[in-house]
Amino acid sequence: MANALQPLPGFRDFAPPERLVARYFFEAWSRVASRYGFSEFEAPIVEGAALYLKKSGGELSSQLFRFADQGGRDCVLRPELTASLARIVAGRQRDFPKPLKWFEIGRCFRYEKPQRGRLREFYQFNADVLGEPSPAADAELIALAIDIMRELGFVAGDFVVRLSDRRAWQGFCDAQGVTDVDGFLQAVDKLDREPAEKTEARLRATGTTTEAVQGFISDPGHHTGGLAAVRSDLEARGLGDFVEIDLSVVRGLAYYSGLVFEVFDAGRALRSVAGGGRYDNLVAVLTDGATGLPATGFAMGDCVIAELVNETPHALARMQAWRQRQRTCEVYVVIADEGQRPAAMRLVSDLRAAGIRTDFPLAPARVNRQFKAAGHALARFAVVVGSEFPELKLKVMASRHEESLAPNTDPVACLQQRLAQPDGPLLA
Amino acid sequence: MANALQPLPGFRDFAPPERLVARYFFEAWSRVASRYGFSEFEAPIVEGAALYLKKSGGELSSQLFRFADQGGRDCVLRPELTASLARIVAGRQRDFPKPLKWFEIGRCFRYEKPQRGRLREFYQFNADVLGEPSPAADAELIALAIDIMRELGFVAGDFVVRLSDRRAWQGFCDAQGVTDVDGFLQAVDKLDREPAEKTEARLRATGTTTEAVQGFISDPGHHTGGLAAVRSDLEARGLGDFVEIDLSVVRGLAYYSGLVFEVFDAGRALRSVAGGGRYDNLVAVLTDGATGLPATGFAMGDCVIAELVNETPHALARMQAWRQRQRTCEVYVVIADEGQRPAAMRLVSDLRAAGIRTDFPLAPARVNRQFKAAGHALARFAVVVGSEFPELKLKVMASRHEESLAPNTDPVACLQQRLAQPDGPLLA
Repeated sequence: MANALQPLPGFRDFAPPERLVARYFFEAWSRVASRYGFSEFEAPIVEGAALYLKKSGGELSSQLFRFADQGGRDCVLRPELTASLARIVAGRQRDFPKPLKWFEIGRCFRYEKPQRGRLREFYQFNADVLGEPSPAADAELIALAIDIMRELGFVAGDFVVRLSDRRAWQGFCDAQGVTDVDGFLQAVDKLDREPAEKTEARLRATGTTTEAVQGFISDPGHHTGGLAAVRSDLEARGLGDFVEIDLSVVRGLAYYSGLVFEVFDAGRALRSVAGGGRYDNLVAVLTDGATGLPATGFAMGDCVIAELVNETPHALARMQAWRQRQRTCEVYVVIADEGQRPAAMRLVSDLRAAGIRTDFPLAPARVNRQFKAAGHALARFAVVVGSEFPELKLKVMASRHEESLAPNTDPVACLQQRLAQPDGPLLA
Repeated sequence: MANALQPLPGFRDFAPPERLVARYFFEAWSRVASRYGFSEFEAPIVEGAALYLKKSGGELSSQLFRFADQGGRDCVLRPELTASLARIVAGRQRDFPKPLKWFEIGRCFRYEKPQRGRLREFYQFNADVLGEPSPAADAELIALAIDIMRELGFVAGDFVVRLSDRRAWQGFCDAQGVTDVDGFLQAVDKLDREPAEKTEARLRATGTTTEAVQGFISDPGHHTGGLAAVRSDLEARGLGDFVEIDLSVVRGLAYYSGLVFEVFDAGRALRSVAGGGRYDNLVAVLTDGATGLPATGFAMGDCVIAELVNETPHALARMQAWRQRQRTCEVYVVIADEGQRPAAMRLVSDLRAAGIRTDFPLAPARVNRQFKAAGHALARFAVVVGSEFPELKLKVMASRHEESLAPNTDPVACLQQRLAQPDGPLLA
């Protein structure tokens, strides 16, 4: 029986405490993206499988959550958001002035073995700029990624953005006579994560060596104009300290065509918090060449960033303070005399109409139990409606200070005023 | 090719203009629910099929989006949120003081023929109270539904809540010797929507007649104590005018066990905007009787309510005003001299760090094109960075009024102050 109460493997239930953590990230993502002039869009959860098979090949397609619907359609639960974005923009780009700056926060699905930080269902924030080929678009996205990290309380030293350019590697391949560029990039992508012999064998198969690759990475002479332009742009914004150029970053997906970047946890160096890059050919591939639109974007999932916040005391403190504020009930109406329940209901209704978060006991209960419920709700104030109504008692929950509200006082206006101020001298 | 750019049948793409409409509803739902002391939760999109087959029977199971995953699991894209909620609460109820007041906003899926107002993928708001058997919990939910409608700009006369009680019909069945209560309630549910002969045949099959049913509906003597209690509670809150008791409402799903209600569009009488009721046995069914928890809840989808807003001028005006505010860019930084781009980037960065929604041209462009882009972005102010930097020009976009900011002025502080005020005398 216990099993029937669990979600499917790799899926999560978000009861209110966990949901509030997720919402913390959603709101930060959305707030910073709006400040940057990005507009929110949303794509369907289910897409035709052709959209992904056409596009990303390799890594993603082996992890697709794929099924036939009742009508026999080959369907997929989206593994990421970029393909849907490219599909929507390809169809509707004439409706919007360029460049498009769009973001999405949505659920994605991968059928892989569930493990820490890798689940079958997860949230992803995606931000993209379409219609602008210059490195200024890439810099705008990297600045957005940095400011999201800062909004979450991270500071210089907590994380680093590693910036690279696939076109530098295209130059390397041309010079070395490497023709299997995809295979070569896969090997470079795994440089830090695979045994050295395995990488060497992979690279030799494409016609080069680890030594040549390492030599190329360590020579700043191979940095492209795009990399220099992004760096200057970020320096002008005062964000230069967060970025380093590192050609060993190439990103796994086949569709990247130029600048790529990843945000790394500086403390543990190898954990990637966000990543993305330029995909100038994807819209053209989806439209069989009918519409071309340069594009660049990045994504950040909810799992790794949540781990990182938990491990970083100053970021965690900020999240906990936010959660505490969100959970707070502003006024709990205590009904000390059931005969006055109708008057209490009217008060509850008026407080809520004024925008005040208000709760009260649905069932009759002893007054001390009601105060306990007010405590559970993290109420700031309790208003006691008793036999002395229309006189009301007001209690500051934190200090237990109690006062009377005279019958000629408007309790809603009084509470609005009190809520806008600190809890008062007894708290200080 | 055109087809490859469309979503699957019954699915929607939300480009930013449509997404903003959806967000309007999400924010209203979330804001009013929080004010009522409800906490947000979120369940997985994919659930084991057994959860739905066990629970709802009949109507829903024929419309399930059902598939086998790669591991051979019998999976379902959730058709509604109540089953997942009951599953989560059954497993974790000991972690939370009762009653639970939880809400969720999420996507649901039904495999049915797509038509106006009925899609394969839609959003649903769900609010539930668990652990409180008294009609006060039902009244709290109905008040929440009414206040959501009012938050959206609807007023008395635009909509009506019809309230009923399945226990009244249980009494009718007992008196009439009707044993197939589910079949009987299905017939009553379709009373207004099916040809009279068909209903009569259905009712006769269960051992009663349309005449007996109509007689029962029209006799207030059959109103239960629960109905009276809910009505008194809502009257005490000042919400009595929005509710009428109507026993012809029974709701389609098999799991309802007591009070049920629907919110109807008053103008077109038959269109249901929201609905729900008490389901006191569901948690016990899911746990094979191990855990019982009285429960009541309701749901509102995004499709019908959006139609209703569009058809109701005062509600539509409120939504449009909100959308306009949301779309506004606060400051657009115009770069009149590319040599000053680094200074402009620094200004953009500082404005955004102060929480100001700021945009700028990613690529060099003529000044009049930049002002056009500022207009598209609905910018309130443009700041012109030109060769006279550090002197800046400030332009009020609506009035075209222009002024200079002296080099010793802090432009961020100045703009924060201006944004907090109306646009100034030239606008009046």
